Amino acid sequence: MDSRLYDFAKLIVHTSTKVKRGDNVIIQIIDEGQDLATEIYKEVVHVGGHPLIISTPSEATRGFYEIADDETITTMPKHYFNLVEASDVIISIRSNINTKSLSNVNPKRISLRSKTLKKLQEERLSKRWCLTQYPTAGYAQDAEMSLKEYEDFVYSAILIDWDEQIKIMKKLKEIMDETNEVRLIGEDTDLTLSINGRNSIVGGPTHNVPGGEVFTAPIENSAEGEIFFDLSSVVYGNEVEGIKLTFERGKIVDYSANRNEKLLKSMIETDEGSRRLGELGIGTNRGIKKFTKNILFDEKIGDTIHLAIGRSYKECLGVNDSAIHWDMIKTMKIGKIIMDGFVVQENGKFFWDA
Amino acid sequence: MDSRLYDFAKLIVHTSTKVKRGDNVIIQIIDEGQDLATEIYKEVVHVGGHPLIISTPSEATRGFYEIADDETITTMPKHYFNLVEASDVIISIRSNINTKSLSNVNPKRISLRSKTLKKLQEERLSKRWCLTQYPTAGYAQDAEMSLKEYEDFVYSAILIDWDEQIKIMKKLKEIMDETNEVRLIGEDTDLTLSINGRNSIVGGPTHNVPGGEVFTAPIENSAEGEIFFDLSSVVYGNEVEGIKLTFERGKIVDYSANRNEKLLKSMIETDEGSRRLGELGIGTNRGIKKFTKNILFDEKIGDTIHLAIGRSYKECLGVNDSAIHWDMIKTMKIGKIIMDGFVVQENGKFFWDA
Repeated sequence: MDSRLYDFAKLIVHTSTKVKRGDNVIIQIIDEGQDLATEIYKEVVHVGGHPLIISTPSEATRGFYEIADDETITTMPKHYFNLVEASDVIISIRSNINTKSLSNVNPKRISLRSKTLKKLQEERLSKRWCLTQYPTAGYAQDAEMSLKEYEDFVYSAILIDWDEQIKIMKKLKEIMDETNEVRLIGEDTDLTLSINGRNSIVGGPTHNVPGGEVFTAPIENSAEGEIFFDLSSVVYGNEVEGIKLTFERGKIVDYSANRNEKLLKSMIETDEGSRRLGELGIGTNRGIKKFTKNILFDEKIGDTIHLAIGRSYKECLGVNDSAIHWDMIKTMKIGKIIMDGFVVQENGKFFWDA
Repeated sequence: MDSRLYDFAKLIVHTSTKVKRGDNVIIQIIDEGQDLATEIYKEVVHVGGHPLIISTPSEATRGFYEIADDETITTMPKHYFNLVEASDVIISIRSNINTKSLSNVNPKRISLRSKTLKKLQEERLSKRWCLTQYPTAGYAQDAEMSLKEYEDFVYSAILIDWDEQIKIMKKLKEIMDETNEVRLIGEDTDLTLSINGRNSIVGGPTHNVPGGEVFTAPIENSAEGEIFFDLSSVVYGNEVEGIKLTFERGKIVDYSANRNEKLLKSMIETDEGSRRLGELGIGTNRGIKKFTKNILFDEKIGDTIHLAIGRSYKECLGVNDSAIHWDMIKTMKIGKIIMDGFVVQENGKFFWDA
């Protein structure tokens, strides 16, 4: 066993979900990650909790969508609901051996199932929950790395000095909470938006492991100017590359992409809310050194920013509503993040960096 | 994937547990068998049921016994209980990669845990349940076969003509239900016992897959004579070989073994009930061609009988009580099973065999 799984398990149990005596804990895996689940299981027992491992192989899920009739797809599995209801902590470990196994499933069926399971999902989110990922060959393939290289990538993102990282994120949150205007300057980019009165959130390592972002909700009609995203954005397994957006009074008035522009268009035109911003995030995890087409990692890459079009987070006091929330990421190695005229970051260095 | 898993899954879902629309189904695996669990999952969805896969790696269980303190070990996991309570069908698949992973656990802790989970176990047994096994390297090793050989062994035990097998078992049950005295004759063996008024049960493929036995509870004070078991009996991972028992008025008055006689002694001396018989079973599954030190298969080997000392089954109308129920198996390739003077089987041939 990779000995780094020990520290990974400890981080999940103690820091992320804070399991304590008597807690009923669900550990969910997909295809692989049984060794990680076992380490988490033992760590939960160590503090006096009661772990249970649920495994849902990706072929089982694909089979479900292929086989289930309408009655089955629209029925809540009562035993599963009762299990979640009686739980205190839910740890979800992405561990797909193949990240494309649902590529040929009709998205309408996935959306119908999501609707059916809405109450279950709300129940899950009412618990102490955590989403993390096990390094599999499938994710390594998406990242264009060997599995061993990808394992190193994952653990250097997850096993960082979280005390130090949290300090940095809190510092940034404090500044953002006092900020009215944010200006982003970079390649083909000069965008201004307001976050006045909005709440910034220190991201992780609680709900997401790895964590490493501070995010908030822009004032919905405030964005002015243009921005170019040098990293591609993935939606339904499709990459949209070289996105450029132009905003006026918070609304996207012009857009283009070097690849898959049609998909960009259809995403932007989803509804009224998808033409406006739902999130501004600043990635702070310098343990993540590479863009890997995996939003759980990408949006936390140190010295990046991301904007999402669509739905904003209520916890950030955002009010933008939309059927989508789609993240787009930009590296800031050449550029500036300016808050109320003060340069918070320049060319990938925070003002407090040496 | 081994295509035999298809038929295996169909047998479990349709014949063994009779899953129907709306059923909440739990599929439990240990270490391996994710492919079988996935096929069962899909077959359950096919009939409109709701499957959920629970995985409990043997290292997680071993870790539990090593780590859990008394409070944890004596606490019922409420989320797990609620899950089972809301389920209709429970399919347990033994799939240990190593059948000895609990060898060094203190048996007292296992027994304490069993006591804690008694209500859970009763709840499980109140459902439609099935115990089966996936071919792993660990079980192959116990069977002294390669994994491929063992897979063939398992599937030729499980994928037999069950209609035909059930016909044979029912014929035997009908005879046994009318029988007063059973006499077993063979090598170093001439034992008489009564099953008068007791109920014989057709074993499988329902609760056990493979099935293939008809069993009942002997009248507790009826056994007279001696019997030699040519196949070894395994208890807590230890083999007892060459067991000889002598009975008078149902009670063991003399015993010996060629190996591990001390263990035999301690088993027999467990309590009052462990000195008497709790079961007479006749194995009918001729798809099982080899003794593999695995009671799920061994007791169903075609043309064997087994006796258990200790607790009898209430469904058989037995009244013997004991903390143990320990099976001992004897091949009948040379010998006779006589019921009320009628030779039901001689040298491995039923009277109806050609």
